[in-house]
Amino acid sequence: MGSIDNFMELNVSELNEHYVRLKEKYDEYKSQNLNLDMSRGKPCSEQLDLSRDMLDILKSDEDYRAKDGTDYLNYGGLDGIPEAKELFSQVLEVSTKEIIIGGNSSLNMMHDTIARAMLHGVYGGESPWGKLPVVKFLCPSPGYDRHFAICELFNIEMITVDMLSTGPDMDTIEKLVSEDDSIKGIWCVPKYSNPDGITYSDQTVDRLAQMNTKASDFRIFWDDAYTVHHLTEKADQLKNIFAACKSAGNPHRVLMYSSTSKITFPGSGIAMMAASEENLNFFRKQLSIQTIGPDKLNQLRHVRFLKDMDNLKVHMEKHAAIIKPKFSMVLNKLESELGRKNIASWNEPKGGYFISLNTLNGCARDVINMAAEVGVKLTKAGATYPYGKDPRDRNIRIAPTLPSIEELEKAIEVLCLCVQLVSIEKILSEK
Amino acid sequence: MGSIDNFMELNVSELNEHYVRLKEKYDEYKSQNLNLDMSRGKPCSEQLDLSRDMLDILKSDEDYRAKDGTDYLNYGGLDGIPEAKELFSQVLEVSTKEIIIGGNSSLNMMHDTIARAMLHGVYGGESPWGKLPVVKFLCPSPGYDRHFAICELFNIEMITVDMLSTGPDMDTIEKLVSEDDSIKGIWCVPKYSNPDGITYSDQTVDRLAQMNTKASDFRIFWDDAYTVHHLTEKADQLKNIFAACKSAGNPHRVLMYSSTSKITFPGSGIAMMAASEENLNFFRKQLSIQTIGPDKLNQLRHVRFLKDMDNLKVHMEKHAAIIKPKFSMVLNKLESELGRKNIASWNEPKGGYFISLNTLNGCARDVINMAAEVGVKLTKAGATYPYGKDPRDRNIRIAPTLPSIEELEKAIEVLCLCVQLVSIEKILSEK
Repeated sequence: MGSIDNFMELNVSELNEHYVRLKEKYDEYKSQNLNLDMSRGKPCSEQLDLSRDMLDILKSDEDYRAKDGTDYLNYGGLDGIPEAKELFSQVLEVSTKEIIIGGNSSLNMMHDTIARAMLHGVYGGESPWGKLPVVKFLCPSPGYDRHFAICELFNIEMITVDMLSTGPDMDTIEKLVSEDDSIKGIWCVPKYSNPDGITYSDQTVDRLAQMNTKASDFRIFWDDAYTVHHLTEKADQLKNIFAACKSAGNPHRVLMYSSTSKITFPGSGIAMMAASEENLNFFRKQLSIQTIGPDKLNQLRHVRFLKDMDNLKVHMEKHAAIIKPKFSMVLNKLESELGRKNIASWNEPKGGYFISLNTLNGCARDVINMAAEVGVKLTKAGATYPYGKDPRDRNIRIAPTLPSIEELEKAIEVLCLCVQLVSIEKILSEK
Repeated sequence: MGSIDNFMELNVSELNEHYVRLKEKYDEYKSQNLNLDMSRGKPCSEQLDLSRDMLDILKSDEDYRAKDGTDYLNYGGLDGIPEAKELFSQVLEVSTKEIIIGGNSSLNMMHDTIARAMLHGVYGGESPWGKLPVVKFLCPSPGYDRHFAICELFNIEMITVDMLSTGPDMDTIEKLVSEDDSIKGIWCVPKYSNPDGITYSDQTVDRLAQMNTKASDFRIFWDDAYTVHHLTEKADQLKNIFAACKSAGNPHRVLMYSSTSKITFPGSGIAMMAASEENLNFFRKQLSIQTIGPDKLNQLRHVRFLKDMDNLKVHMEKHAAIIKPKFSMVLNKLESELGRKNIASWNEPKGGYFISLNTLNGCARDVINMAAEVGVKLTKAGATYPYGKDPRDRNIRIAPTLPSIEELEKAIEVLCLCVQLVSIEKILSEK
């Protein structure tokens, strides 16, 4: 079979002929009883191995007293040990007074921030959000399903905003926030975004920092999850939004989050939050009721292991060396199987954990189901949109890090087959 | 100076004479610039040393895959690893299906339970508590200040209930809960209670399990913090309230909490919650939005280190061997300095972390301030009561574990001096 170009230019019999050939291949896979998972952004075991030395880096016979006498083995320290603040304030480009180091989950910190806002409001706000008739959040999409799930839990109405190559559609955002004071927040994964891999442009950052919001207690939830997770030598540069917010006279607008979940161990990492001192003091008051403090020993483990920014960079290069071939393989395969056929488009991320694939409108759900039928699990259809509903039913999030490269190759072959089969069905149905 | 008996039988000049002698001693301490802290129930460094082997018990070259293939180094596992459920379900005398193992803080779990109840209600409840005009909690007192702080944070009205030698005053409780459906919960530290060291009697447990509550969604917050923290060989036995609740047809009434904060490392322990499967499933739904999961590695560290119930018992005996002499010294000193003087009473706990001292009515705040003036820090006056207000101003919580025995001896001498001085002032003012 020769190479096939633009599907849109094939006639019905050519499409049918092609469909039969592809279907045969698909049925072959069916008999293989595959069990492949590209659904979640989980590191692979080789990546986890990079941090194994952290497991026993704290020795039983050592002293764990800080300079100020705090014994890290005992109670004390509400918002993180100074050593961790020192290192991670550099990661987020804030001062050590503008960061809180917490437990093992930045998602938990974001959830708790919103739970607190619902019950008690935010710094400088006039009312607990939960007392208002309606609270809305802007959700640049495709985006991170777990962000959207938090909104659903708290009955926060989500407004989908398109992602452009420069970040979320700022024209729409500026208009919406200037008119509606029930819009209290926006979810952003500003660097190597989940799933598009887009890094917000300087102009987007500035516009977010400067825009007029009708709600005086509007907050940007800046989930900088992939800030050091580069795939290429020339890393994307993300403008410091906190500095931009300060310059714009909106220092309390942004709440930044990150974690080491994909630096060291997912589930046993440490999470952090950065914001204005006023914002943090407002949180600390409630935090001091919620807990006596975070796991200081795990913070110390991280600092001892990651050491400093230079060493962190080297560590992240090792991650990249493991996962980059997987990303490249997926991209090459997409190009060789789907390129020029005019039935799909995708991004080429310079970092992060995902490749975002867009099919023809109305095809993503069928593709995902069809792949699942032969044992290839992809992120649930619609998951990258609020309420799990992709309005164009076209986005598929590919998470290439966990499977081995052999598994991944097979999984992508299946995916490409399914995209072609469903596309042909779609095109034929419209002829 | 001979031994002085009952202060109540001394005349004015005897009291004055005694006051002058005690004041001289007090002033001597003033010149010593003491800095002693009996304010919080923190383990001492010898106790922390008992768990040092846990620090590097997970080796860098080992495999951390569970039987079911879960890699404990990676994401996964919302509610605790099976090994931890296995061990700690025995501690709380529940089944492995009736326990969730979480992060490093049971306080955090309790806080979050109430935050969820405010926002979403509880299993089987008709309404989020936060939507009700008023929510009330029963607070057996003296009790744990951090429980009361959670109520204050959520604007939950606290009703003080007296502690008796058998636990909280059940006559009062039964009456209150049967009449008022805005009473949604009760805080209990049922074993070696904070600060009284009282273990609830079987009858108290049964009455709590069986009583008629006007609120159908009433919950007992059962903070079993000191369940294995015995000071004597003959440990107190606490009746299993969960079993009692099931027998009484109220299986969803109780939510049990505990942690290893005072077993291994405070701040780096693991926390747990036990309840009916229906209660836990209700929580899990929300938990799955809040976090991807707890720190599985720290759970594994604990299981590897504590091993099983027999070994846990041996471990706790080592704790007891370190802190029992401190408790004995305090009790002996209280007896020799204050015994028979009729100005103070105290408990003799068989476990837990505190000695609860009651002065004459109206004296505790002055005693605590007077001790602070010479550098002896005690738990804040009133802290053991809701809103920080001890209605009789008489309760002082002594936390003897952290200081060395020499420091402790000095601190208790100061405390006993202050109790006598303030008592004499009080008696004289009433003559």
